[in-house]
Amino acid sequence: MTRPVPPHPLNPALAATFAPPVMAARRWIAGLDFPPDRPLLNVSQAAPVAPPPEALRRAIAEAALEVPQAHLYGPVLGLPELRAEIAAQWSRAYGGAIGADQVAITQGCNQAFCAVMATLAGAGDAVILPSPWYFNHRMWLDMAGVRTQVLDTGPDLLPDPEAAHALLTPETRAIVLVTPNNPGGVEYPADLVRAFADLARQAGIALVLDETYRDFDAREGAPHALFTDPDWDDTLIQLYSFSKAYRLTGHRVGAVLASPARLAQVEKFLDTVAICPGQLGQMAALWGMRHLGEWVAGERREILARRAAMVQGAARLPGWRLTGCGAYFGWLEHPFDLSSHDMARRLVTEAAVLALPGTMFTPEGDPRGAGALRIAFANVDADGIGALIDRLAAFTP
Amino acid sequence: MTRPVPPHPLNPALAATFAPPVMAARRWIAGLDFPPDRPLLNVSQAAPVAPPPEALRRAIAEAALEVPQAHLYGPVLGLPELRAEIAAQWSRAYGGAIGADQVAITQGCNQAFCAVMATLAGAGDAVILPSPWYFNHRMWLDMAGVRTQVLDTGPDLLPDPEAAHALLTPETRAIVLVTPNNPGGVEYPADLVRAFADLARQAGIALVLDETYRDFDAREGAPHALFTDPDWDDTLIQLYSFSKAYRLTGHRVGAVLASPARLAQVEKFLDTVAICPGQLGQMAALWGMRHLGEWVAGERREILARRAAMVQGAARLPGWRLTGCGAYFGWLEHPFDLSSHDMARRLVTEAAVLALPGTMFTPEGDPRGAGALRIAFANVDADGIGALIDRLAAFTP
Repeated sequence: MTRPVPPHPLNPALAATFAPPVMAARRWIAGLDFPPDRPLLNVSQAAPVAPPPEALRRAIAEAALEVPQAHLYGPVLGLPELRAEIAAQWSRAYGGAIGADQVAITQGCNQAFCAVMATLAGAGDAVILPSPWYFNHRMWLDMAGVRTQVLDTGPDLLPDPEAAHALLTPETRAIVLVTPNNPGGVEYPADLVRAFADLARQAGIALVLDETYRDFDAREGAPHALFTDPDWDDTLIQLYSFSKAYRLTGHRVGAVLASPARLAQVEKFLDTVAICPGQLGQMAALWGMRHLGEWVAGERREILARRAAMVQGAARLPGWRLTGCGAYFGWLEHPFDLSSHDMARRLVTEAAVLALPGTMFTPEGDPRGAGALRIAFANVDADGIGALIDRLAAFTP
Repeated sequence: MTRPVPPHPLNPALAATFAPPVMAARRWIAGLDFPPDRPLLNVSQAAPVAPPPEALRRAIAEAALEVPQAHLYGPVLGLPELRAEIAAQWSRAYGGAIGADQVAITQGCNQAFCAVMATLAGAGDAVILPSPWYFNHRMWLDMAGVRTQVLDTGPDLLPDPEAAHALLTPETRAIVLVTPNNPGGVEYPADLVRAFADLARQAGIALVLDETYRDFDAREGAPHALFTDPDWDDTLIQLYSFSKAYRLTGHRVGAVLASPARLAQVEKFLDTVAICPGQLGQMAALWGMRHLGEWVAGERREILARRAAMVQGAARLPGWRLTGCGAYFGWLEHPFDLSSHDMARRLVTEAAVLALPGTMFTPEGDPRGAGALRIAFANVDADGIGALIDRLAAFTP
């Protein structure tokens, strides 16, 4: 018998999407040695490199030792206390009325996106995604057989509601926005977010707003007013992550804010894919929300300082252009006649810099992706950013 | 403007599947008080009710305090040490040659199933599922637009390879078996598992073998010989859970064993849905595998004793029949002209017993489901099983 080529059978929708970019980049550095006087500058992933503060680590350890529930199944949609805490803090922060029944907890914000999207769109449907995009969003749509309607952003990396309107078809189920943006670093103006919400409501589709990086927004106060609308949950679905603010990436805790009716559908997905979020991670998130407000504010100040260093540094790069810079990311356009993919590979060996190429965030063949790098500058301090700029300045194609 | 009924838009594949059974059952007891002299006997969920042993809890607490990596992102497919440990222990236990590159870690075994199934089948494809089934398997297939080909099991709850052969169509992508079985409690004979593997290989489809309850199999030695075939990974995909053996349900740690080519596809799904499994849970699983062999053996003896109590007790129930009993579950057929759904609801208030009705594990309208309860007996000790039997014996329809 002739054996079929493995893996067989293979869902063509899986085959059609790309391999995880961060893992691909990790493989670029696997087995390489970097000299102590020029260590690797890893600006590839939005990932805190240090653990959470000791008080939070102690709270986790105590729960592990003394709280039996820390090790047992919990409700599919998350710990009631955490849902209520989010509802209360969000109501204050956004000036709206948000109930605990409008909040669900997930195993990280990626899962929040997948769960929400599963309730919105299946094979044959379509979703509007601004480009450059967050690659895992595109991957989920591919794997679910959902067509991505690419919304090109302007020179300032902002998406245009008029252009989105022109993309609408009867198959369109949602518009996805990420603000502050990954990978672009741009903070979307409140009016722009409102215009997209109005467009989505008129079209009878959902606005999925990923605010993973909200804790590092440079603006004071609420970044938009959508939650002040008492009917917000007929259109808006907000996503959030505890990974960055509290350095809990390894615990996988995220959140969805949506209508209770939507969350009843989300519950089916989460029951099947997760059963429940990890208990210790949820307890850590709750402890952080209750005790680390000041600490997170300090983290934000530090990241805003790094952002300033990034802006300052990029100005030293002749011919380069920092199109967007905020949250954890800078979108850095280079002046060379060289694809960012090849450039990123060469930067590893020639400059000891690991950054993801723009090609990982844009449709295949898009010159915008080929012409830029995404710099996750938040992972390195001001000195590191200085060194990064020096190394990029020394690069010759 | 008339607002569409929320949640809108709604993926019809999500609307088509049922709500999480365990959460539905939890709602049956919400707000109810049970007197101290007749507390609720909860045999609804396969869930240890006590935390892991203190030594393991201490290991988790120490990692939380002292290992920075416990809080940070890790590889998508899991900690290399844990993958290697599984490969080594499995190779010994099953008498095969299993490599670390044939093992991936997931956020629980439910997620392992979803990830594997996503690589196998998409909308329009079909998968063979014996009935009664594990409901989350059915839910994933529904939500992914995959058609379930129902394989009715025999009077002994065993599936028949001939009957499965007759179900095969060009759309069939996989056969799913759970052994020891959830919900039936039956341990599939090694020859039967082999016959299904042969059938799957001949058909060029996958055999997905969920062995979540393998640590509680009453048989000594390997429960099947599939891993002794050096080419096992061209057909076999095995799923495992750390939740039961080590009482880690709240940490969500499971595993997939499959070909490296399959796992490269699984990695796309897991990167998008999970980014990585929780780090502390993985460290706990690894610590457990290295230190708790004797303890798990004791757990198994205790559960086998409970199983014996269940078998003995069921014999006292006039007209009832314990069709299957093993792992965590008994499949208990009742003698009444009453749907198990109504019976389960009444047992809560009339007998202070929470058990899931067979209707939650079978196609709608199937008399087999209406005629039986699933008893997760492993959650109660021998005295509790005695009390359970007394209460069922006193039930009158």
